[in-house]
Amino acid sequence: MINEAARAGEVWRTRPAAERADVLDRVADALLAAADDLWPVAARETSLGEVRLRGEIARSAVQFRLFAGVLRDGGHVEAIIDHADPSATPPKPDVRRMFQPVPGVVGVFAASNFPFAFSVAGGDVASALAAGCAVVVKAHPGHPELSRRVAEVMRAALPDPDLLGLLEGFEAGKELVQHPLVSAVGFTGSLRGGKAIQALIDERPDPIPFYGELGSVNPVVVLPSALADPVGLAEGFAASLTLGVGQFCTNPGLLFVPDDADLLKAITAAVSATTGGTMLTPAICEGFESGVSRLDERLTELARGLAGSAEGAVAPRVYTADLTTFSLGLPEFAEETFGPSAIVVTYKEITDLPEVLRNLPGSLTATLHSADPVEAAPLVPELARLAGRVIWNGWPTGVAVTWAMHHGGPWPASTTPMHTSVGATAIRRWQTPVAYQDLPEPLLPLELRDDNPLGIPRRVDGALSVG
Amino acid sequence: MINEAARAGEVWRTRPAAERADVLDRVADALLAAADDLWPVAARETSLGEVRLRGEIARSAVQFRLFAGVLRDGGHVEAIIDHADPSATPPKPDVRRMFQPVPGVVGVFAASNFPFAFSVAGGDVASALAAGCAVVVKAHPGHPELSRRVAEVMRAALPDPDLLGLLEGFEAGKELVQHPLVSAVGFTGSLRGGKAIQALIDERPDPIPFYGELGSVNPVVVLPSALADPVGLAEGFAASLTLGVGQFCTNPGLLFVPDDADLLKAITAAVSATTGGTMLTPAICEGFESGVSRLDERLTELARGLAGSAEGAVAPRVYTADLTTFSLGLPEFAEETFGPSAIVVTYKEITDLPEVLRNLPGSLTATLHSADPVEAAPLVPELARLAGRVIWNGWPTGVAVTWAMHHGGPWPASTTPMHTSVGATAIRRWQTPVAYQDLPEPLLPLELRDDNPLGIPRRVDGALSVG
Repeated sequence: MINEAARAGEVWRTRPAAERADVLDRVADALLAAADDLWPVAARETSLGEVRLRGEIARSAVQFRLFAGVLRDGGHVEAIIDHADPSATPPKPDVRRMFQPVPGVVGVFAASNFPFAFSVAGGDVASALAAGCAVVVKAHPGHPELSRRVAEVMRAALPDPDLLGLLEGFEAGKELVQHPLVSAVGFTGSLRGGKAIQALIDERPDPIPFYGELGSVNPVVVLPSALADPVGLAEGFAASLTLGVGQFCTNPGLLFVPDDADLLKAITAAVSATTGGTMLTPAICEGFESGVSRLDERLTELARGLAGSAEGAVAPRVYTADLTTFSLGLPEFAEETFGPSAIVVTYKEITDLPEVLRNLPGSLTATLHSADPVEAAPLVPELARLAGRVIWNGWPTGVAVTWAMHHGGPWPASTTPMHTSVGATAIRRWQTPVAYQDLPEPLLPLELRDDNPLGIPRRVDGALSVG
Repeated sequence: MINEAARAGEVWRTRPAAERADVLDRVADALLAAADDLWPVAARETSLGEVRLRGEIARSAVQFRLFAGVLRDGGHVEAIIDHADPSATPPKPDVRRMFQPVPGVVGVFAASNFPFAFSVAGGDVASALAAGCAVVVKAHPGHPELSRRVAEVMRAALPDPDLLGLLEGFEAGKELVQHPLVSAVGFTGSLRGGKAIQALIDERPDPIPFYGELGSVNPVVVLPSALADPVGLAEGFAASLTLGVGQFCTNPGLLFVPDDADLLKAITAAVSATTGGTMLTPAICEGFESGVSRLDERLTELARGLAGSAEGAVAPRVYTADLTTFSLGLPEFAEETFGPSAIVVTYKEITDLPEVLRNLPGSLTATLHSADPVEAAPLVPELARLAGRVIWNGWPTGVAVTWAMHHGGPWPASTTPMHTSVGATAIRRWQTPVAYQDLPEPLLPLELRDDNPLGIPRRVDGALSVG
């Protein structure tokens, strides 16, 4: 299958960006058209509900459309032209650089928690197809039937069905990572899984780029000026914590709050009023139970939600500690427990926060709640070094699919912190630059010819032009 | 020393880009002003001559000035602004993304073969300082005194001398790679050295990005239409092969030629007329001797240059094989032998080339000699997948320092094939993106404020503007 994908990719990479854009739009259309058939399959396999799943199909379609727009813009190839300068010492040749798709096939490991938007129809696949690559997806075992159905829908919308391959099973995943024709791998999953893939890549004669999102604890810092509305804060936190039974990459696992009785009371009330649910898979449920049982032994429980009546449902769980106790429990207390659990850490002085924040692992998001920009200012750079996205007076769950979005962060949030898996720049992971030196005009790609026939943004002799 | 660098970096990263640009220009000035003192130290330690070394100092200065220009342009932060869209489903927040310097310190391993331009005053250091990072360099043992002198000159030109640290010795290098405050590493050297560094990084609790350039065999393909001037071709090849005693990353190690008696005769004559010289270090010399002795056993020698009279000088060595013999000897025959040695591979049909090219490891450069773009056209994409720079009717040695230059390629040319160590985009390696969501205007970096006070290029709501 990987060989077939590679063959299909040889043609796909040569197609004009505008043609690839049209194909991505057709994939988006096909996903939306199949929504009525797809969501019930997903519901059966993931315990997620109709509203969420329909929303996620729409999000998948938006991702394909975003990359169609990226391709039509043309900035993704980052064309740079430096004309020759024979008068320079030494003389400068004509050098023209652009991104091209990585050779071979992109391997993608689908995530458990977004059966559409981070799976077969997910952002990794959309961005890799956009880049000009064929993709082979290792299906997540949590939704095998859905994976097959989505692949079928997408393959029918592609000019060559072999552009999208689907593998299942642990051994198939290993083969994917080590196949000579696979030249980059994307992954969304656990730290352990990500490390195992990296080890397999290191065994290759030619180690390849690995773009993994391995876990994130997503700290939220509430500053004193935000205490005016303790109930609003507490309800926002409880809603974000329990959204999708806490199974979001950006779930808020740490909440730093002033040692304020009203707020703690409000959090206790809000969390107690939540209802958990059935987790995506029995293995994920076991992981959650084992994570919270470790916290049970070492921390005070602040509040517990209801499990609800569904089979195997888990209850949201929130612990509390003061800043000193929390610091002494690092790094364990900052390890992600995937699911609806968090630690509320109380602090006395804002000035005590930076040191603790510097001891946290990298995250996808870091959030500030404050009514006073002056109070918050010193913390913004701290959060910007800790996480790839800094959120103001909001909650981290929810990742907008836009040009500017960055969904990445320092290890273990990302294996490659300068890359993102959501947003327009996610396409960069599946591209490599090539510079052409003194190549005759007829041999240059259209993107690099002097008259700019595609009208794309370029930097020419140091000056950017919009095309 | 790494702690001191980290402290200095905390201030440096907050300085405006325009201020950092001025500092880079001062470093360039200081290097040029010290050239008379520096080149003799380098000559003593590397066996390289005055003209080459003075040229290399100028090149180092050019690199610092290029990044000063990059900072003044402001495009390096890749500012993207997406305004909120409350009418979207789900509503879109305001998201603004830019690159920031990586936290902590950048570690750089200096190269043996460019005591200035890929060493303490090299492109890795220039690009990391430009990005806003403090740098600690592990000196190459081949030129320790020069490394100290260059560091001294540069530290005097920096606002805080601790922005540039210098370490010596194998153990210090290990500590650098594993230090908790080091957040990215650049390296130019051997495959073995690069793998050792990667293994040290994998042992970290937080593996960090590693940008290594590990070796390149730089194939050159001569097509039949280029045979009109066999002597010119042969002399160009011999000159590129022996430049700097063959100790360039882009040294042409494989020359594919039509099975043409005149050309082979001309190559024999041209190579026989060359003179080698003393290599950079005794260890490098030993590596060369052991590399060519392996080829001696398996291939026919086509020509040998003179060693010359200098102490420990080596003679250029060129072997030959037909395409079949060469293919059967892969991958060994495509391993880099660092120094003035190459294999001339004769082929019968152009159409036999692509398969062999696909079996070569990644390279920094790949070169075509042809007088006929139509004849060459099918090979251009083959070379563009094999190497990061495709050269037309030239020779691979010589890397222009310009905006468009790409000095990288598939493994083992680069550990991260989408990044370059030369050219304007080399700065990207030392930056990570951060997205600010709904941040109040006064807390946003100047680069992301609505009125664009710095006048930098940005993409706003999907549309690029030049600032």
